[in-house]
Amino acid sequence: MKIITSPKEMKDFAHSAKAEGRKIALVPTMGALHEGHFSLIDRAKELADIVVVSIFVNPTQFGPNEDFDKYPRQLEEDLKGCADHGADAVFTPSTSDIYLPDASTFVVEEEISQHLCGKSRPKHFRGVTTVVSILFNIVQPDVAVFGDKDAQQVAIIKRMVRDLFMDVEIVSAPIVRDENGLAISSRNKYLDKLERIGAARIHEALLAGKKLVDGGSLNIDRVKALVINSVTNAKTRVIYVEVVDRETSLPVNEIVPGKSRISVAVWFGQTRLIDNIEI
Amino acid sequence: MKIITSPKEMKDFAHSAKAEGRKIALVPTMGALHEGHFSLIDRAKELADIVVVSIFVNPTQFGPNEDFDKYPRQLEEDLKGCADHGADAVFTPSTSDIYLPDASTFVVEEEISQHLCGKSRPKHFRGVTTVVSILFNIVQPDVAVFGDKDAQQVAIIKRMVRDLFMDVEIVSAPIVRDENGLAISSRNKYLDKLERIGAARIHEALLAGKKLVDGGSLNIDRVKALVINSVTNAKTRVIYVEVVDRETSLPVNEIVPGKSRISVAVWFGQTRLIDNIEI
Repeated sequence: MKIITSPKEMKDFAHSAKAEGRKIALVPTMGALHEGHFSLIDRAKELADIVVVSIFVNPTQFGPNEDFDKYPRQLEEDLKGCADHGADAVFTPSTSDIYLPDASTFVVEEEISQHLCGKSRPKHFRGVTTVVSILFNIVQPDVAVFGDKDAQQVAIIKRMVRDLFMDVEIVSAPIVRDENGLAISSRNKYLDKLERIGAARIHEALLAGKKLVDGGSLNIDRVKALVINSVTNAKTRVIYVEVVDRETSLPVNEIVPGKSRISVAVWFGQTRLIDNIEI
Repeated sequence: MKIITSPKEMKDFAHSAKAEGRKIALVPTMGALHEGHFSLIDRAKELADIVVVSIFVNPTQFGPNEDFDKYPRQLEEDLKGCADHGADAVFTPSTSDIYLPDASTFVVEEEISQHLCGKSRPKHFRGVTTVVSILFNIVQPDVAVFGDKDAQQVAIIKRMVRDLFMDVEIVSAPIVRDENGLAISSRNKYLDKLERIGAARIHEALLAGKKLVDGGSLNIDRVKALVINSVTNAKTRVIYVEVVDRETSLPVNEIVPGKSRISVAVWFGQTRLIDNIEI
């Protein structure tokens, strides 16, 4: 497995692979890799000849009071995980490799990004679309694999690719959960053992909402209220619960079974967790 | 010469050319082609194996009260000019081919675009960077050629390419002038014969400024005042006169001979004209 830090070297690697007619898949990550990420690498292996995992804790997608500094960094362990899952290259540039001090160009999505997480994290998605554009231009993937846990992110990236005619296919892969149902996330590291068990309540609340819909109740307010009530306890503070279109992640006024999703973000103690379920 | 309207067909054309190892040059235009554009096509011919000229009057770079509707359109004549100059393909999509009704993604440059034309045309450069990104993704050029008349545009596109790691080289080509010194522009069509002769005053004013600097005067205020006074007459209204860095087009506080540029925008009657000169 090749470990590449320089964008120039990464571009050369991609050019050579493409010149040989090989298909490249990219799995963009911020490191702190877990079973969720590994499932994306496994999916990428099925889709392309060459799998590149990028590991880059992207400063522009963190707000000023967010957890950029304490975001978990564990490169050695991550590299081992990538190798174990058969990645062909890991691209792990430094911040200054990606952003020059006078960088002034951004890619912005202005509709989907206004909702859900975009409301409480105003510049988050602009950071995401910018860095993903940069990574696409450097790694030149034919396909890129993202996790469904970040369903709004997937929708925004698909919109960006469509609007700007980017030459890459976006594939998303199912949420991976721990034995208690908690969606696996790098931020789960912030939780202690008891909190981690307690946070399973988020998935239980989503399941309760889904059960209501499956039982025939299409009243959005009732479904949202049930999820909010089910998720709320002394440790949690709900940021949002929304019913959205499954493709666009845009909030909807009517539940369309088979085409909708419940998306949720909660503060669990000091930790911001998101999750979602298709309904 | 191939005439292509569909982005999909244009992408296929580009993919085939690249698979054969051929280098592609793009000359992005809004049509109404003149000697300035033809000089760009000629330059592109020197730089690549395949020259693609795009003709697309881009609505997102026009303000609500600007001349989108009356911008000159003359496709037949343009196609003939492209053929005469040896273009291999003309890409001429419709507005709806490029922008879906719910398009919501934009590429923005937020430093250089704040100055000069960006002040009086607030969303202009955002339209430019967005459409140029789209064209780059569709045509996949190795090199793209722009005219120095739009020096700020060139600087912004170079910045965008640098910041987003786009895989394209930006080349600019010298301003082409008519026999009176007026920089050739599609908007010169708005001028009647007498106005066209009178508008040569813009270049004369820039030459006067340059002469002052060549003579040893590095006082910015004096240079700007001379240009403003020289350009002003009953028909003109100065929008800006600025001394800028030649590479970045950012306003400077000191003239550095050999590294600066005087940039000017004026209303000449109902017509907005820009011009610049290296000093």
